[in-house]
Amino acid sequence: MEVKNFRWYMEFFTPYEAHMRGLKGVLASEQSPYQHIEVVETFQYGRCLLLDGKMQSTEADEFIYHEALVHPAATVHPEPKRVCLVGGGEGAAMRELYKHPSVEHITMIDIDRRVIELCAKHLPEWNAGTYRDKRTRLVHQDARKWLQDHKKEKWDLIFVDLTEPIEEGPSFLLFTQEFYKLAAERMTPNGIIVTQAGWTNPTDLTCFGAIYQTMKKAFPIVRPYEANVPGFDNPWGFCLASKRPDPREFSAERVDRVLQNRGVKRLRWYDGITHVGIQHMAKHLRVAIEAEKRTIEDKRPLYMPS
Amino acid sequence: MEVKNFRWYMEFFTPYEAHMRGLKGVLASEQSPYQHIEVVETFQYGRCLLLDGKMQSTEADEFIYHEALVHPAATVHPEPKRVCLVGGGEGAAMRELYKHPSVEHITMIDIDRRVIELCAKHLPEWNAGTYRDKRTRLVHQDARKWLQDHKKEKWDLIFVDLTEPIEEGPSFLLFTQEFYKLAAERMTPNGIIVTQAGWTNPTDLTCFGAIYQTMKKAFPIVRPYEANVPGFDNPWGFCLASKRPDPREFSAERVDRVLQNRGVKRLRWYDGITHVGIQHMAKHLRVAIEAEKRTIEDKRPLYMPS
Amino acid sequence: MEVKNFRWYMEFFTPYEAHMRGLKGVLASEQSPYQHIEVVETFQYGRCLLLDGKMQSTEADEFIYHEALVHPAATVHPEPKRVCLVGGGEGAAMRELYKHPSVEHITMIDIDRRVIELCAKHLPEWNAGTYRDKRTRLVHQDARKWLQDHKKEKWDLIFVDLTEPIEEGPSFLLFTQEFYKLAAERMTPNGIIVTQAGWTNPTDLTCFGAIYQTMKKAFPIVRPYEANVPGFDNPWGFCLASKRPDPREFSAERVDRVLQNRGVKRLRWYDGITHVGIQHMAKHLRVAIEAEKRTIEDKRPLYMPS
Amino acid sequence: MEVKNFRWYMEFFTPYEAHMRGLKGVLASEQSPYQHIEVVETFQYGRCLLLDGKMQSTEADEFIYHEALVHPAATVHPEPKRVCLVGGGEGAAMRELYKHPSVEHITMIDIDRRVIELCAKHLPEWNAGTYRDKRTRLVHQDARKWLQDHKKEKWDLIFVDLTEPIEEGPSFLLFTQEFYKLAAERMTPNGIIVTQAGWTNPTDLTCFGAIYQTMKKAFPIVRPYEANVPGFDNPWGFCLASKRPDPREFSAERVDRVLQNRGVKRLRWYDGITHVGIQHMAKHLRVAIEAEKRTIEDKRPLYMPS
Repeated sequence: MEVKNFRWYMEFFTPYEAHMRGLKGVLASEQSPYQHIEVVETFQYGRCLLLDGKMQSTEADEFIYHEALVHPAATVHPEPKRVCLVGGGEGAAMRELYKHPSVEHITMIDIDRRVIELCAKHLPEWNAGTYRDKRTRLVHQDARKWLQDHKKEKWDLIFVDLTEPIEEGPSFLLFTQEFYKLAAERMTPNGIIVTQAGWTNPTDLTCFGAIYQTMKKAFPIVRPYEANVPGFDNPWGFCLASKRPDPREFSAERVDRVLQNRGVKRLRWYDGITHVGIQHMAKHLRVAIEAEKRTIEDKRPLYMPS
Repeated sequence: MEVKNFRWYMEFFTPYEAHMRGLKGVLASEQSPYQHIEVVETFQYGRCLLLDGKMQSTEADEFIYHEALVHPAATVHPEPKRVCLVGGGEGAAMRELYKHPSVEHITMIDIDRRVIELCAKHLPEWNAGTYRDKRTRLVHQDARKWLQDHKKEKWDLIFVDLTEPIEEGPSFLLFTQEFYKLAAERMTPNGIIVTQAGWTNPTDLTCFGAIYQTMKKAFPIVRPYEANVPGFDNPWGFCLASKRPDPREFSAERVDRVLQNRGVKRLRWYDGITHVGIQHMAKHLRVAIEAEKRTIEDKRPLYMPS
Repeated sequence: MEVKNFRWYMEFFTPYEAHMRGLKGVLASEQSPYQHIEVVETFQYGRCLLLDGKMQSTEADEFIYHEALVHPAATVHPEPKRVCLVGGGEGAAMRELYKHPSVEHITMIDIDRRVIELCAKHLPEWNAGTYRDKRTRLVHQDARKWLQDHKKEKWDLIFVDLTEPIEEGPSFLLFTQEFYKLAAERMTPNGIIVTQAGWTNPTDLTCFGAIYQTMKKAFPIVRPYEANVPGFDNPWGFCLASKRPDPREFSAERVDRVLQNRGVKRLRWYDGITHVGIQHMAKHLRVAIEAEKRTIEDKRPLYMPS
Repeated sequence: MEVKNFRWYMEFFTPYEAHMRGLKGVLASEQSPYQHIEVVETFQYGRCLLLDGKMQSTEADEFIYHEALVHPAATVHPEPKRVCLVGGGEGAAMRELYKHPSVEHITMIDIDRRVIELCAKHLPEWNAGTYRDKRTRLVHQDARKWLQDHKKEKWDLIFVDLTEPIEEGPSFLLFTQEFYKLAAERMTPNGIIVTQAGWTNPTDLTCFGAIYQTMKKAFPIVRPYEANVPGFDNPWGFCLASKRPDPREFSAERVDRVLQNRGVKRLRWYDGITHVGIQHMAKHLRVAIEAEKRTIEDKRPLYMPS
């Protein structure tokens, strides 16, 4: 392999696993009050957003991650109007949400204003103008506290699009049973919440399993699923929880019909067949998360290695 | 991230992408006439087989790769008796095949005797004694030529479990239309062939697409699918082609019934739900491989970067 | 070792040796017509200039390299007035030269105008304003041709401060016997030429030895020496050749007296003791370069791996 | 650069600096009660000894390190008979010492028996049979305690050939003022002690300077010097301290005469010229270590990052 490049981004996932990507350039790099934010350009994956050195999205496959986060929930909800997005500063989740014409309002709570500003500048296709959409409200506060304080606001959809909880940061309180119960209180009767749930690498399924088990304590319906996001170097897990709508009741045809009726266009990853596929996760994942004993509480949080 | 380890295995996938894995030790390392063979022990994935520095299987997730290679075909075939395995020196594909009690004979054609010997010694759980099974015949010759010469032998199942074709090696002739036509001639009326088909990374789907398009020229039924093998750092593609049986006609219940009736046990990745899941591949993969114009012929082979 | 950083610069010296440095930031990165130019900021060595991914100088130790290049020759020359600098776009060699007050004129021949412009902008302390010194002439042409064409200009000192010769580039013609003979013709009777001469790593002393042997064919006095430049990851060789002045005739006291009489100040690496030290190179280097059979001619150039 | 290799050794010097070396193979790898010991074979430097992942010696340049450690002291001592070697399990320091025919006895104190056993097996040229020399005594105890307990044994030469002091290990007590005072008590009137003294990288000269300053509190004569050991990726420092003999009083001719009279042969790095060279260390090193305020005491030890 002819290696000519000399600038690299190196991400350690564990003390024993690292991935290196050749960098064409660095578009932005700054320390915000909350984290180190970088927008880099790679040879293989195009532009990428990194937070504290962890890959958040890449130009080449952010469509997979963001469609997987948003559309299964948005499609099975009968008519999503009010959406709360925790994190997701790239704006790409909003871009996907506004493809559903019923959406009347999105509140995005991202504590770090600079993420949004830098993404708006350097990754404009990812937010596609949605920051300036009149239906959008941006909130730069701690999401848990904001949801607690805003008791009257109810949500059809809530998305938790955060880096995994680590010891130093506040985000670990957005993965606990207490948080899911608060979310349930703030959701409408057909409300659905989706969280990214860490990798689905079989060498350690604790995070995926614990989020699944914790959500089960707060919601009657919990549907874990997986998507391949090669920019993360690992397949990735999501957990959808709902008060009533159930993705398993949607055949491929039904999903395609909903999308067509709503006029949802320009989907690259999601359609009826994809929907059915992700409802049929591989056996070892199902077995592992059902067997997981760990749940996550405010006083017993789950930390990922930082 | 506390990095204490100091021995690493570094695999470049492209000149711009590399993965590093911490090594606990090296169990075997030798140059055969065909390739460099190594069995190493990693911290995260346990023991691994490397050929010319390319990851072939890891202890932690070889079950995913080998079950994905073998069981969809073996299950939808009404009664697989004679199986031809091209490559697959680890022995794990045979281990999976013998779980189907109808299997009466397996010919494994792996040009490199040393791969089998080293795997037998250092990865005994992977072959689980199948090399010594009386139903097994080991052939150390060029697979294409062997199949050409053995005109009378017919096969219910053929598996192509090889590293991707590169310019220096002979294996590129096992991915061409001419090879698939030869395979079709050697197959029984219900015969099925499965090949690993390269990564399914959206940054380059040429290999997956070209194998799919090439198989379509030789078989009436071609069913591509994908499995997550994190040890490969990328989701992985397979292509199943058949003269008659069609995996899409198998519901989850039907698959589970077949497995139960046959007494197939100890499956970790595959079952009826998994089967349905892989028949519903994500949209962007379906779109990309359908749009692929490239096919592979002996005189126009496809090479992967080495 | 706690590894938090994630942006790295990786330089391969051979296919088996690489060094990685954590990057704080990238100040400039562009492709000129001649090479890829980068100014990066590292944690350990501060700002660094890279050409085609090869480390040229670092903020932390460029003083060693540039003082070692310039002062031994400048000090033993009785009164250096006219200096020709081939390469050396950082400007730091000029900065050192102008410390000798007798210097009336410096012609710097660096084919790549952009190196000078980017260094002037991002590494101002390195040139310390010398680009704008009235005694400086900048020439952006091929140095060999320029010297050939300018027959009347004679030089007291010539410095060759170039990356090693590689096959693709024109600089290999600035390391040959023909070049040294041309240089000798352009030098005054007390003229001295110094070239950087590659690493002095005992695993391969061909370059150092061949330059030494080649210079011996063109000059009566050739004095190789070595300096430790950790930013290069290897100790580094220089070769000083002269028509008459001989550094070996200079005791520590004599060097210090010259420097004091001339009023040369702000030297960090060089003084009388350092001068004596570098005239006493370790035995294995002396043995290896004396034993070297290779010389370098226009038709038999020496290439370094690129 | 064509990178074909895939097994690497990666050493972090700081969280921001790492070196990678391609590995041909691993000859030994085990965890002793004291440290992780490895003998590996590299492409560029041949066989190497690693302790806890830190490079100790390489086949290509161990002659530089070991000759630099041993011969300056052994040569300036009028007649070295009894030598104490703290550490130095490779045996190469002993090999060098026995080149001086006056040596009647060497006690090597290396706490870790397995280092010696593995080096004896895999690096036989390095000890050259000296472990089995009748004049050799091997002691596997804590060196400080052993020297304290053996009050009657006096030494002409003491060498401290240890990895740098780190917080977890006991070796930090072999770099303190109290240790040097103990050593002085155990030394004969012409006694000399030499310690390796860490890198001489200008980005951090604390270790070199502190050892120098600490030795100055215990001995009238202290002579720091430097050698280029590229396998360490950095130039390396030594500190020689003595009660009476002074290396500065030895001209090149005198050193060569001593070596010739004693019949010391097969030296590759050391001779009279080399001796004079290392007594003339570069100015910035002299300035830095003279300015160093830090000294090392049992209660205020110096730790290096591990």
